[in-house]
Amino acid sequence: MKKIVVIGAAGTLGQAVSAELRARHEVIEVGVTRGQYRADITDPASVERLFGEIGKVDGVVTATGKVHFGPLPEMSIEQFWVGLRDKLMGQINVVLSAQQYVNDGGSFTLTSGIIGDEPIRLGASATTVNMALEGFVRGAAIELPRGIRINVVSPTVLTEAMDAYAPSFRGFEPVTAQRAALAYVRSVEGAQTGRVYRVGY
Amino acid sequence: MKKIVVIGAAGTLGQAVSAELRARHEVIEVGVTRGQYRADITDPASVERLFGEIGKVDGVVTATGKVHFGPLPEMSIEQFWVGLRDKLMGQINVVLSAQQYVNDGGSFTLTSGIIGDEPIRLGASATTVNMALEGFVRGAAIELPRGIRINVVSPTVLTEAMDAYAPSFRGFEPVTAQRAALAYVRSVEGAQTGRVYRVGY
Repeated sequence: MKKIVVIGAAGTLGQAVSAELRARHEVIEVGVTRGQYRADITDPASVERLFGEIGKVDGVVTATGKVHFGPLPEMSIEQFWVGLRDKLMGQINVVLSAQQYVNDGGSFTLTSGIIGDEPIRLGASATTVNMALEGFVRGAAIELPRGIRINVVSPTVLTEAMDAYAPSFRGFEPVTAQRAALAYVRSVEGAQTGRVYRVGY
Repeated sequence: MKKIVVIGAAGTLGQAVSAELRARHEVIEVGVTRGQYRADITDPASVERLFGEIGKVDGVVTATGKVHFGPLPEMSIEQFWVGLRDKLMGQINVVLSAQQYVNDGGSFTLTSGIIGDEPIRLGASATTVNMALEGFVRGAAIELPRGIRINVVSPTVLTEAMDAYAPSFRGFEPVTAQRAALAYVRSVEGAQTGRVYRVGY
């Protein structure tokens, strides 16, 4: 049994990941406004405080992050910054701050998304952020100490989100959060590092 | 004959790109501290001012950008931000601010680098930033209006930089700045968009 922190545990994906992992592991759920533990991962001090309370863990999953969607010709620089600060640096803050709390051979599993590979209208910021996360994982995998692994899951659009997002994802086959959650399990319980787990491509 | 702005024109790569383009085009050289024109592309107001002075152009090349190199286990969040602010958002600021100054069918050509694909020690931030730039180009290519194209050149280490960088790039075949510059010419004078031109891989 491992001790796994799931950040973004109240979200559709986070709930499914927690449920899959809970079958065999101790899962610590962290949300921004809900959950056993609260943290704002865009604030490094908040991440420090979180792991100071939780202590050593075997794995950290992040399934959270905001990005601004809008037409590129009208996108302001400030709007572009939203995704860099939130989805990108939020998850990177967790790795940089929490690495000392991860046991030998533990793992990080981050979340990107299909728009990194398959750009959509209004999504230039999301494509940038998702590719950046995949780059971070590729770079970090060869440098993390003590056998700590790092991977990223890139799911297609979730079935549960299609009510809201279908017009942006015509022709995309959605996957359920439960199916996407399996990729996180492969990352946490498997042996690979530096991998992008693509789900539903 | 096109009117092409080269930002970072005083650098090793920028000089080579300017020289190649000057054979057939009007080249406007922009540097941070040197060149006909000065601009700090990390400051959107400075980019606005630059294009306000230059006016309409047919192409914009950016060959500039700082990134922090250091061991991931010791990298501070502030050090990680350097590359996001400079190499990543500097180049993106140029696209967001200058798109209205680019003539129909014009182009943007940005610069990433081989570390995006081939991570090296101390380079996690560079891998992140280079992949982010490739993501941005992929996303922006389908949204830029009026037939404006956007590509990115990802060169391997330059021959001219090997004195300083050789220990980080053992086994990499360097290319001359002149050879790398040809990829920028293909982007500026060719017809493709959303492309990564890899040089010397």
